[in-house]
Amino acid sequence: MSSLPMLPGNPGHQARLAIRTGRYTGPTANLAPGHVQANLAILPRALAEDFLRFCQRNPKPCPLLAVSEPGDPALPTLGVDVDIRTDIPRYRVWRDGELVEEPGQIGAHWRDDLVAFLIGCSFSFEEAMLQNGLPVRHIEQGCNVPMYRTSLMTQPAGRFHGPMVVSMRPMRAADAIRAIEVTSRFPSVHGSPVHLGDPAEIGIADLARPDYGDPVEIRAGEIPVFWACGVTPQSVVAAAKPAFCITHAPGHMLVTDLINARLAV
Amino acid sequence: MSSLPMLPGNPGHQARLAIRTGRYTGPTANLAPGHVQANLAILPRALAEDFLRFCQRNPKPCPLLAVSEPGDPALPTLGVDVDIRTDIPRYRVWRDGELVEEPGQIGAHWRDDLVAFLIGCSFSFEEAMLQNGLPVRHIEQGCNVPMYRTSLMTQPAGRFHGPMVVSMRPMRAADAIRAIEVTSRFPSVHGSPVHLGDPAEIGIADLARPDYGDPVEIRAGEIPVFWACGVTPQSVVAAAKPAFCITHAPGHMLVTDLINARLAV
Repeated sequence: MSSLPMLPGNPGHQARLAIRTGRYTGPTANLAPGHVQANLAILPRALAEDFLRFCQRNPKPCPLLAVSEPGDPALPTLGVDVDIRTDIPRYRVWRDGELVEEPGQIGAHWRDDLVAFLIGCSFSFEEAMLQNGLPVRHIEQGCNVPMYRTSLMTQPAGRFHGPMVVSMRPMRAADAIRAIEVTSRFPSVHGSPVHLGDPAEIGIADLARPDYGDPVEIRAGEIPVFWACGVTPQSVVAAAKPAFCITHAPGHMLVTDLINARLAV
Repeated sequence: MSSLPMLPGNPGHQARLAIRTGRYTGPTANLAPGHVQANLAILPRALAEDFLRFCQRNPKPCPLLAVSEPGDPALPTLGVDVDIRTDIPRYRVWRDGELVEEPGQIGAHWRDDLVAFLIGCSFSFEEAMLQNGLPVRHIEQGCNVPMYRTSLMTQPAGRFHGPMVVSMRPMRAADAIRAIEVTSRFPSVHGSPVHLGDPAEIGIADLARPDYGDPVEIRAGEIPVFWACGVTPQSVVAAAKPAFCITHAPGHMLVTDLINARLAV
């Protein structure tokens, strides 16, 4: 961890310790502001190779921040003393594609052949958007970002395939241009948008009825802007129905020691 | 000039020598591919200070590549042996806002108080767009880019003020996103767009009737994307009706020794 700035009172580490000891059990949206948070998918080694290729082929929906060694719960490039079995407030355990449990720790499920994939999350680029004075409507409205399954297909790898899921943020054209510039600098957290304007072009029938999250207001003169979404890997894993899989519960992410601003290229 | 790569047979220098000696008198669009070309405005020193502030306040329409010393026709940061009195194929001489002459050289008009402003040109970012496989419709159609006066106002400085002129290139949404990324890397040649989508939002009534240049086809599923245009400074200078001014004739630019790719940030 010598390459990370390990300040005394590292807020990322503090957040993980609070989660690990059960002192914090809620969603992570406002924990350790400025710190990178990550989506989680844990798969048995036999499937991990396909999934790694899937992520490599689909960097916009599946930007990989880190991949663990098989059986090793540490993620030294993401933070000091990370234990992926305890450091997320709520997990989801899946068997044959069915959600079977939402535990607060997964030590009882851990196996020597499990590989953890940590995938970038839009919290990082939304922070950059807010710092640039750009509107983030679902934050203004205090709800979840609206997300939609699209007709954009991911590049398949092994048994993993399926449609890309996108998140949508409405804004005026000049803001959309600036948002593209800003998010282009963050390829490790979905990067620039995949579409803007007419939702029908990417197979979205009704913006008022998202497939995940909540609808948001679109004001006169605003256009919808669509980013590849970290729900894509979860929906792809769910569709592949692996015998065993663990993910984070929505909104309950891994808080890392990495600084959002340092992700910028 | 030691900081520039002065290859034997520097194509920028060769183009300027052909122009200086009268061997080349046409538009410069296809001269010295890969080399930066520049718009020209020459003003008496008494006005130059206002115009310099105007450019500084309006970097998207007026990105300054170089400003000469008063009375000095050399531009050492733009190329070896540049003489701004002879190295452009066709000039326009203006008196009190009226075009009075289109000479091939301006030595007879040169004065000790003249300051030359060289302003970035969209040729540079269009080259980058083509290298990225993005459509540039007016190049496909073999005509001039369509340009429009807008309701976007420049920031005034001294006697210089007026509406921003934009150029328009139509493309599909995914290409527009990539074009914003690509042109953002070239702030010294207009940078990212100023608008996309509904032309009425920036005061353009009819895309089929540009104020300068030629109309281009907009295909189904394409959206218009608008960049600040180097015609803006010329239109602002013309509106200010200075007693004396020299510009290049449209399409007849200064070919420099700078390499387009090196402008990228």
